[in-house]
Amino acid sequence: MSGKGILLKAESIAATFRDEVKQSLNQATRRPRIVGILATSSAPSKSYAEFTKKQCDELGVEFILKKTGAADTADLGEGEGVEEAIIEANEDDSVDGIMVYYPIFGAQQDHYLQQVVSPYKDVEGLHFKFHYNLYHNIRFIEPQSLLSSGTPSGGVAAAAIEGEEPPAGTVKSIIPCTPLAIVKCLEHVGVYNKILPYGDRAYGRTVTVINRSEVVGRPLAALLANDGARVFSVDIDSIQEYTKRPRTDAARKYHPRHVVHPCSMTLQECLAVSDVVVSAVPSASYKVKTEWLKDGCICMNVAADKNFEADVREKASLYLPAVGKVTILMLLRNLLRLQRYGVRPQ
Amino acid sequence: MSGKGILLKAESIAATFRDEVKQSLNQATRRPRIVGILATSSAPSKSYAEFTKKQCDELGVEFILKKTGAADTADLGEGEGVEEAIIEANEDDSVDGIMVYYPIFGAQQDHYLQQVVSPYKDVEGLHFKFHYNLYHNIRFIEPQSLLSSGTPSGGVAAAAIEGEEPPAGTVKSIIPCTPLAIVKCLEHVGVYNKILPYGDRAYGRTVTVINRSEVVGRPLAALLANDGARVFSVDIDSIQEYTKRPRTDAARKYHPRHVVHPCSMTLQECLAVSDVVVSAVPSASYKVKTEWLKDGCICMNVAADKNFEADVREKASLYLPAVGKVTILMLLRNLLRLQRYGVRPQ
Repeated sequence: MSGKGILLKAESIAATFRDEVKQSLNQATRRPRIVGILATSSAPSKSYAEFTKKQCDELGVEFILKKTGAADTADLGEGEGVEEAIIEANEDDSVDGIMVYYPIFGAQQDHYLQQVVSPYKDVEGLHFKFHYNLYHNIRFIEPQSLLSSGTPSGGVAAAAIEGEEPPAGTVKSIIPCTPLAIVKCLEHVGVYNKILPYGDRAYGRTVTVINRSEVVGRPLAALLANDGARVFSVDIDSIQEYTKRPRTDAARKYHPRHVVHPCSMTLQECLAVSDVVVSAVPSASYKVKTEWLKDGCICMNVAADKNFEADVREKASLYLPAVGKVTILMLLRNLLRLQRYGVRPQ
Repeated sequence: MSGKGILLKAESIAATFRDEVKQSLNQATRRPRIVGILATSSAPSKSYAEFTKKQCDELGVEFILKKTGAADTADLGEGEGVEEAIIEANEDDSVDGIMVYYPIFGAQQDHYLQQVVSPYKDVEGLHFKFHYNLYHNIRFIEPQSLLSSGTPSGGVAAAAIEGEEPPAGTVKSIIPCTPLAIVKCLEHVGVYNKILPYGDRAYGRTVTVINRSEVVGRPLAALLANDGARVFSVDIDSIQEYTKRPRTDAARKYHPRHVVHPCSMTLQECLAVSDVVVSAVPSASYKVKTEWLKDGCICMNVAADKNFEADVREKASLYLPAVGKVTILMLLRNLLRLQRYGVRPQ
């Protein structure tokens, strides 16, 4: 034993989900089809698109890469034609899933595009509906609710149900790929305790999530808190606590979904008590200080850059440098679910 | 004559709409009710809330200010409880319109909140549906379409219709307040030519819009281009051209809605040919250079800060320093429309 923590590559975790996806594909009535839309000249997006295609080919999912904008020809601007490509895929009955390679225009306009994708083809789980369900801990939905606007109703919050299986007439909501992949990795490494009841299996765990974007950090903090964890959500200018058991309540009331409070602790204080640290800061210079980590914690890097120092394993018992390989399998899992739900507008 | 351009305050424009709103209120079956949700300690938001209340009181619209988060008590965080307050107002049948005082959490999370507001109570017009209609030049919609998710269908693009009145069974879509107020001001000062057919009355006009946010700049550029203008949309790192008559098309084809192309002109070159310059840059130090303006152009400041130099009227024939007073009337106009549409989920 070196005394150093373990370096854990995502591939070992991905392998278990790859088998699950293969089995589901064998049971599918027909081979599902994904359209991937690449609209920029970004090299990481291009290589992620190639990686998606390779994974789909291996597993027998049909993947069609649709290039538009600067990805298609140098005469076109970045992102040109992307909305039209989404609408075309929405309207094409032979398409089961749509994935768009972000970032394209920046957070605001990209958020608009995420609403253009029909919820029943949204394998990435980026539509408002899915975020709303996640934030409200609505785990089971009526499939037809994917066709109605406004705040979803008729969903079933986890606290009200007994087990993991959807009640009759409902199906599981779709969870955004990246936060879901992170949760699945945390389950795999034992952060979730299977002895505890479904919906509360992270109770007793303290997690720091660095980043509060709508794509990764905030949905992840909500997911973990809905599962019982005490979560510190750290952004560039504030720290918030997400929890179902707020320490500020005199009665230590249990909430059926997480509540959010401002937190007066510093990052250093949060890290000192955190069993798990997830960092997703899009910056090459940002580093979580190893000396601030609790000895034996689990660290997970979700950013494209390395957010942890080279000596992170001097303190961390486990270090996961990336989760991308699991993310793509979550996307295929969502695809198979949506295909099974079979929702189409009339 | 001083040779200087005219300084035009929004009040003179607001007055005409105030009369229109008063008349509509007289015809309304019951007094409409707005809930304004203030969730931060921001001084500008607080004073805007007070201004809204004053306007509503004057006109006989019931305005209920709901304070939550840091606006309610110092113990609560900025924005705490805002989502719950929106949902409560969504579900309250006595509420006709909901307005939320942004910014609260920042662009991304605020965009999430904007989708939580039910489209049929969204007097600010910030829901994805209304942005989608605007970007697609869908002016008339079936009222019931406000209840369905996904990309709207069944809307009627302006190019396909003859006049300003909605075809049978349809109503006008809701347009986001601020861009709408700007367009109404531009109509008022003669930028729109009433001799031209409806839907193309800004044809022949060149407009530079500085800012490309999803709340102001991009919807405004799309609105103006859908109405026939040639629009330069200027952001911090790019310039795009929005137009229905792209110069890049060999055949000078007319498009039923605007198309967007990258533009290789500099800001100086855009301003040199612009009849109208609208600036909405949230920065006290940003200034449009007076020397770059075309002599006799119309300048409109939409930012909270002054984006034009003190000598702007040396070049501009008209200078509008603010549009807030018109914006609030557009909000009331939207309220009256939505109340008239009478859409409610079953």
